[in-house]
Amino acid sequence: MEIEFLGTGAGSPAKARNVSSLALRLLDERNAVWLFDCGEGTQHQILNTTLKPRKIEKIFITHLHGDHLFGLPGLLSSRSFQGGNEPLTIYGPRGIKEYVQTSLRLSESALTYPLKFVELSGDGVIFDDATFTVSCKRLDHKIVSFGYRIVEKDHQGELLVDKLAAAKVPSGPVYGQLKAGKTVSLPDGRTLNGKDFIGPSQKGRIVTILGDTRKTRRATELAQDADVLVHESTFAANESKLARNYYHSTSEQAAQVAHDAHVGRLLMNHISARYNGRGAKELERQARATFANSKVVRDFDVIDIPFKK
Amino acid sequence: MEIEFLGTGAGSPAKARNVSSLALRLLDERNAVWLFDCGEGTQHQILNTTLKPRKIEKIFITHLHGDHLFGLPGLLSSRSFQGGNEPLTIYGPRGIKEYVQTSLRLSESALTYPLKFVELSGDGVIFDDATFTVSCKRLDHKIVSFGYRIVEKDHQGELLVDKLAAAKVPSGPVYGQLKAGKTVSLPDGRTLNGKDFIGPSQKGRIVTILGDTRKTRRATELAQDADVLVHESTFAANESKLARNYYHSTSEQAAQVAHDAHVGRLLMNHISARYNGRGAKELERQARATFANSKVVRDFDVIDIPFKK
Ligand SMILES: [Zn+2]
Ligand SMILES: [Zn+2]
Repeated sequence: MEIEFLGTGAGSPAKARNVSSLALRLLDERNAVWLFDCGEGTQHQILNTTLKPRKIEKIFITHLHGDHLFGLPGLLSSRSFQGGNEPLTIYGPRGIKEYVQTSLRLSESALTYPLKFVELSGDGVIFDDATFTVSCKRLDHKIVSFGYRIVEKDHQGELLVDKLAAAKVPSGPVYGQLKAGKTVSLPDGRTLNGKDFIGPSQKGRIVTILGDTRKTRRATELAQDADVLVHESTFAANESKLARNYYHSTSEQAAQVAHDAHVGRLLMNHISARYNGRGAKELERQARATFANSKVVRDFDVIDIPFKK
Repeated sequence: MEIEFLGTGAGSPAKARNVSSLALRLLDERNAVWLFDCGEGTQHQILNTTLKPRKIEKIFITHLHGDHLFGLPGLLSSRSFQGGNEPLTIYGPRGIKEYVQTSLRLSESALTYPLKFVELSGDGVIFDDATFTVSCKRLDHKIVSFGYRIVEKDHQGELLVDKLAAAKVPSGPVYGQLKAGKTVSLPDGRTLNGKDFIGPSQKGRIVTILGDTRKTRRATELAQDADVLVHESTFAANESKLARNYYHSTSEQAAQVAHDAHVGRLLMNHISARYNGRGAKELERQARATFANSKVVRDFDVIDIPFKK
């Protein structure tokens, strides 16, 4: 599980940073990629990575501002053009369906794959299967903006086959019963408890990815105990008034959310073009005063999200 | 007057060529830039040029396929963000207004300048002022696609002030009358014909810029005696069947149009990613067999369009 940042800028594309998009790479976990936001030029950025558009299984749009949205019709068309035929689901605020469907209809773009929309009407769980649960909460932005919490299901422990062999338990259907944690009686009269033959389970990872927002308690709730929090940092620590007026956050506010939510790591994006190389470092320094494990990310940064030890 | 190519590829963006857009630079002629088509990433390409979005006065969309269109909402938003406040007019097929307005409405993008739409209902003159006339004709593509003919008005000859001085004509309102071509009587009794004191007039230039199309007589009509013709060349000379099936043209067909219309120069764009560096040279070679002054253009090529001698 890694996050690959495709666009880490704010508002308009700049040479150093494209507008918003990031890929949650779940290749080991489900042979898929989930995209979060899709600003104009996202498909161009992807050309410079190893990401395959046909592997994109879900796209989560945080809010409908153009710098998070205008790359979507082009990406959908190119995924089709490149022979993608697996279904794709788009999650986002109300209006996302009209935007995409109008764009595809007027450009007469026929897709080679089924496209599904989930328009978010409020907070709650929006996806759940055997490996992941995704929930969302509304944040505090000028336009309806959501944050997403992606929770990996715990990985069950491995069956300890070496221990079973040492105990001279013959292989067969009993292995499956033990792996399921059941207590079984062997033909030789012994009774075995599955729990004694299963290794430690592995806690699933939690990633929280937010749309543009003012500092809000709901961001902290979404980020509670997350391994990684991706939070915007449009303004510097001393610009909280500007941040409030423009419905954005400062570096320090992002760090406060990370601190209050006890996350493992804070990744700061949506960096204004006013903060070039040195300026971005300064935003990072400001955040670290409140939350040490903070990083301002750049386009094409790939951040690994390891299991907790 | 120059053409600056911003995207010369076909269908999907590639590293070597972005999707369609070109700028007709009319900085000397009207301190303005006219954009033709606006594929995704056009504003990103502009970042690598000296073009200023606020100088874009008109945008002509040839057809609504995504690779000619999907960069438009982002460019309009950034023009606003960068403080553009001069009016902008968009010309294009029916549906262009719905596409732009839906994108701007759902993304809650308020523009700082007046935006006007001219939806094309058929062939004819779509713009005319003191310096330029623009007309359009429908071409032959899978979707409604237009070509544009941009005709510069002739430049009137200069008043020959040296000749007037040599003839000892005193300066005054009489100069204006002579410049207007009138015959005037001087206080000393002489009669002068303005035509004798005006230098040669300069023929205006003609540029024809086509949308995607099969080979069609209407392209030849639009290009008649043009200084420059921009014609798509999606397929190679031996692929006329493919070109027909996909509603596109071959290199040779583009050259035939240039030849039949007696244009000065053919610029070939909309080059498929199947034709990389060497392949594009081959398309050019094929065209030159029919029309010698043919060129396959690349992104960021700037082509000067001089006055006829
Ligand atoms: Zn926003
Ligand atoms: Zn087309």
